[in-house]
Formats: sequence, structure tokens, C-alpha cells
Amino acid sequence: MTITSRNMCLKQYPKGTPTSDDFLMTTTEIKPAGKGEITVQNHWMSVDPYMRGRMTGIKTYIAPFELGQPMEGGAVGQITHSGHPDYKVGDWIMTMLGWRETFTAPVDTLKKSMLQKLDVNMIPAQAFLGVAGMPGLTAYAGLYKVGEYKSGETVLVSGAAGAVGSTVCQLAKADGATVIGLAGSDEKCKWLESHGVDHAINYKTAGNLTKAIKKAAPQGIDVYFENVGGDMLEAALNNMNMFGRIAACGMISQYNNEAPTPGPNNLVMIIGKSLKLQGFIVSNHQDCAPEYFSKLGPLMASGKLVQQETILEGIENAGEAFMRLFDGNKQGKMLVKLT
Amino acid sequence: MTITSRNMCLKQYPKGTPTSDDFLMTTTEIKPAGKGEITVQNHWMSVDPYMRGRMTGIKTYIAPFELGQPMEGGAVGQITHSGHPDYKVGDWIMTMLGWRETFTAPVDTLKKSMLQKLDVNMIPAQAFLGVAGMPGLTAYAGLYKVGEYKSGETVLVSGAAGAVGSTVCQLAKADGATVIGLAGSDEKCKWLESHGVDHAINYKTAGNLTKAIKKAAPQGIDVYFENVGGDMLEAALNNMNMFGRIAACGMISQYNNEAPTPGPNNLVMIIGKSLKLQGFIVSNHQDCAPEYFSKLGPLMASGKLVQQETILEGIENAGEAFMRLFDGNKQGKMLVKLT
Repeated sequence: MTITSRNMCLKQYPKGTPTSDDFLMTTTEIKPAGKGEITVQNHWMSVDPYMRGRMTGIKTYIAPFELGQPMEGGAVGQITHSGHPDYKVGDWIMTMLGWRETFTAPVDTLKKSMLQKLDVNMIPAQAFLGVAGMPGLTAYAGLYKVGEYKSGETVLVSGAAGAVGSTVCQLAKADGATVIGLAGSDEKCKWLESHGVDHAINYKTAGNLTKAIKKAAPQGIDVYFENVGGDMLEAALNNMNMFGRIAACGMISQYNNEAPTPGPNNLVMIIGKSLKLQGFIVSNHQDCAPEYFSKLGPLMASGKLVQQETILEGIENAGEAFMRLFDGNKQGKMLVKLT
Repeated sequence: MTITSRNMCLKQYPKGTPTSDDFLMTTTEIKPAGKGEITVQNHWMSVDPYMRGRMTGIKTYIAPFELGQPMEGGAVGQITHSGHPDYKVGDWIMTMLGWRETFTAPVDTLKKSMLQKLDVNMIPAQAFLGVAGMPGLTAYAGLYKVGEYKSGETVLVSGAAGAVGSTVCQLAKADGATVIGLAGSDEKCKWLESHGVDHAINYKTAGNLTKAIKKAAPQGIDVYFENVGGDMLEAALNNMNMFGRIAACGMISQYNNEAPTPGPNNLVMIIGKSLKLQGFIVSNHQDCAPEYFSKLGPLMASGKLVQQETILEGIENAGEAFMRLFDGNKQGKMLVKLT
């Protein structure tokens, strides 16, 4: 017996903004699980901005994707065949083997790459790819550990309507912050304000961003959660308070640049205002996980933390889903439903 | 009886690089100390890059200089008249009333602005304006507290031949670092290497700075002590190791810009490498002072920490001394000898 999986691969490393020409769908035959292995049917897969960094052919903190091979990324699915006593058919699990419909792999190998059993009774399966997963922990670690947020401070968030940004906004609001969000459409801003954000600014229509932030937060910014970079960092620097902290999670405005683009022209403010600008990668902050996940349940149950989602269906749309991370044509967590 | 003081004032706020036209010498009559006051003859005054920030007419973390009034800054002198029981004629003191030959002021007022009695038996008086004063403490706080330097790491220093930079280089060397210094002349580089710096790079003749640093430190940079900004920050970012720290003390390349200039084009590396870029002002790190000054004596006595100086004589040359901070025509601590 064999099982068929459709997979999404990279045909070539994108130059600049990825296009559909960069992706290639393949079909492979999968053998059902042998001893020590499990076969998994993925129900949901995640696309995340950090994946752009694996599409360059250059090793950074993580190896590049191999051309012609199924890409990798967070995925949630159910076990269909098991050759391992600890994993039963029907169990829900999360792995890093996304971008494919189904796969068979040794449990020992999966364990090296964040294999996790999921309890989907209280939390919907796909939330483990968002607020209850890596993007959620990224938000928490960035806000508290890197951003050193203290109750009552003013927090500015760029990419505020994204998977990470919208979680930061809600976590900060739940802990007494004044929150200013920057997003790319009126619809996104409306969603943010309806979920407690004090001022959501549509950066595309706001005009002078420095002034728009100043108007929204005349008291200045204590913590800036950076997802975007470029002009937003410049405007944020202009509005930071003394001893402000910038948690740099991503600079999505820079990921598709073919040539290096200059940084903000006011970086010198970092000195006069004694600012800290610190980059981080969530995998180095796993120690926050128990604390975050203990808070997550009550926050979700009370409706203070909501996962907004944009869902495309079918592996054939995974490339499209990824591309939408960059053109902004989505809200909240971008997901691909595979079943 | 009256005493005459010649003072250096700002005639106008400089546009771009300061010129002699921006300075104005005045002569004032000083009354000898009355009750609670002291009269001080300044022997040495300091010029420091941070003063450029007080020449803009804009309040930052410190008020701007008043036009037509003697400027302020670190100065070391002796008491010539005293109306205060705790301060005797002949005592050496440090005040922030530099840029003038002599002054009378209430002790209570001076105490609010870092009045300090000096013991000049072990340490030469002018060193209290350099290694044994604010620049020395800046170096120490930046290296250890902001830069989180740990013994044996690799440290890159820009402005390495300056008052702060040369102290950082020597402190790091005394604590087991590999030190790479960036300076603006072969003479400066020679001095640095003769004082233990592993590789001194003349950035004016080095060509591609990223490659020059990589050649000098193939193991990568753990701590970058930033005095200069601009291209040097860009080259440093390219060479930083994972979890590297950048202690941003100054960005002298930016201080005379009339229009904002773009920042480094590789700021996104802060995320992938999980870097920390933190600005600081020494006055917020006075808590390091006891620790630093306890180490200072032995370091100076053993010759591991040396103050290199460039000295101009006479208050009339104070403006020139200040301007030399920016054109690089000096080595080590820039001082003006007033007597």
C-alpha cells in the first residue's frame, strides 16, 4: 500500500518578491509507517515571514530550503499509521514538516525538530500555529523579555494586524498598556481597534508617520515591537522615550530587497535617548514557554486573546498564501487548510 | 579686588562642522569668593564630542549652551579664594565650569554639578578629565555593563585612538580580549598596537572595511564599542557574532550632519544574529564608578592603562581643540592647558 502526498517545493531561490514561478508542486508516494515511524496527515500548515530567509540559498541561523524538495514549516495534523508505541492513530501532533499533505518519518527524527502532541479539546488545532504556537510565544518573549514591558507603559507595534503583531497588541492591552498599532489597511485598523488597540494607524494613508504616532501617543513610546523596519523604525525612533526598548522580531519591509537599502537616518537617537534595540529569534526564548502557556488558556477563555485568521485551502495555494504575507492581502494569521 | 577671566563662548550655533567663526572669546571681571563660595583657577579643561549636542539650540538629554555665555564642561583647577570651611586655598577640584580661566561660585551650586575634590599625588591632575574621569568611566560602563564583555571575547572599537576608545582598548586587553581598533591614521594605529591592540586598522586606507575587519578577526566580533557610526557600524554589523552586543557611546560621524544621513543598510542583521544595540550616557551609569576606580589605580600603576594626550595651550585655543575632535587631528585625550 502506498499513500500519495502533494508537496510544495521551491523551484528556484526568488529574486526580490517571490512569485508563483518560484514554486513547484510535486507528488510523491509515501510508505506507511514502519517500526519507530509515524505517518501523519497534515490538516493545517503555516506560512511565516521568517521562511523568506530560508529562500536565499545562504545559511543564516537556519539552513536554506533545498530546491526541488518539500519545504519545511509548522504544520498540525493527525497520525494515520503508527509504528511507535507512544503515538496512536488519531493523535494530533505538530511538526515542522509542513508544505506537504502527508509524510512518514521516524519519531526520533521528528523529536529533534519540535514534535509536539496537541490537545485540541480546548484550543482549535490551527491555533497551535498561531497564538498558541510559535507566533504567540514570539509575541510574549519579545514584549516581556526583550522589550522589558512593564504594566502601564505605551507600546507601539508595527505589522500590528499580523499573527505576531496582533498577539502583541492583545497581550499588552490585557496587561494595562496603551497600545498604538501600525497596519496597512482601514479594515485591519478597524479589527485592531475593535480588539482594544487604543489607536490603529493606517500607515499607507497616515502621511507623516512620525507625526501620526506623536498624535496618537503624545506621552511617547516605551516599547516598540518591530516587525517591519524601514520607515516605521525611523518614525518609532523619533517617538521613543528615554530608556525605551525596541524588540526587533522582523523587518519584513527588507526581506525582498534585491539590493541593500539604507537604514533609518536617525539612528543616533539611540544614544541620546539611551535606547536598546535588540533582535531576537523565538527559538532562543523557549524558557518563556511555560509562563506564556500558563497565561494563554485564561486569556483565550476570557476573549482577551483572539486569533484572527486568513485561510486558503489546498496545498496548491500554499505559495499564494506565502506571497500574501508580503503584499499585505490577509489579516491575522495566514494559514493553509490541507484537508 | 577683582580677578579677570577669559572665557570661550558660542557666538552662534554651528551649522555643520563648527568653525572658528562660531566661537567668541569674552573677558569678565570675577569677584573673589564670598561666604559659601570658592574661587577656582582652572588649570586644565576638557573638550568632548558630546558637547556638539549642546551646540544645536535643541534640548536633548541636556540643555543647549547659551549663546554669549561661557560654555560648560569638565575642568580641573585649584582653589585661590575660599569662603567655605570644607574647601581650602590650594585644594585641587574638578567642576563642570570649563571653557573659562577662573570663576567664583557657591559650593552648594557646584555640588549639584559633580564638584569633586582630587588627590593629584598618585594621578596627574589632567587624567581626571580622561582615564580617571568621565571618559574612563564611559569606557568601563560601555564595555562591561552595556557591552556585557566577558573575558576572552573579541572586541572591536571605533574611534579607538580617542579618549574613550583608547581606554576601552586597554581595559579589554587587560582582561584577556582580542582587540581590533579602528582609527584614522597610521600614527594612531601604531600607538594602539604599541599598547597591546591586536590589530589596528586605518579605516582611511583599509579599503573594504568589512573585509579588513574579517581578516583581523576571522572568529567574528562579540562586542563592538561604537564611537563613530555610519560606515563603521555597517562593517561591524557584517562581522558580529550571534548574540553580539553593540555599546553605542557616540556616533561622531553624524554629529555635524546638516541633513539626516541614512543608516547602515544591513540593520536587518540585528534580527538574524540576535544582536543588541544599546545607546548609553555615562551619567546613567555612575553606579559603576566605585568598581572602576578600584581597578584604575593598579591598572595605571602597572602601565596597562595609559592616558595619551594632545594638549593645546591657552583658552584662546579651546575652540580649535574642540574642532580637532572632528577632523581627527589629535591623539588620545584632547586637553586645553589654561595655566
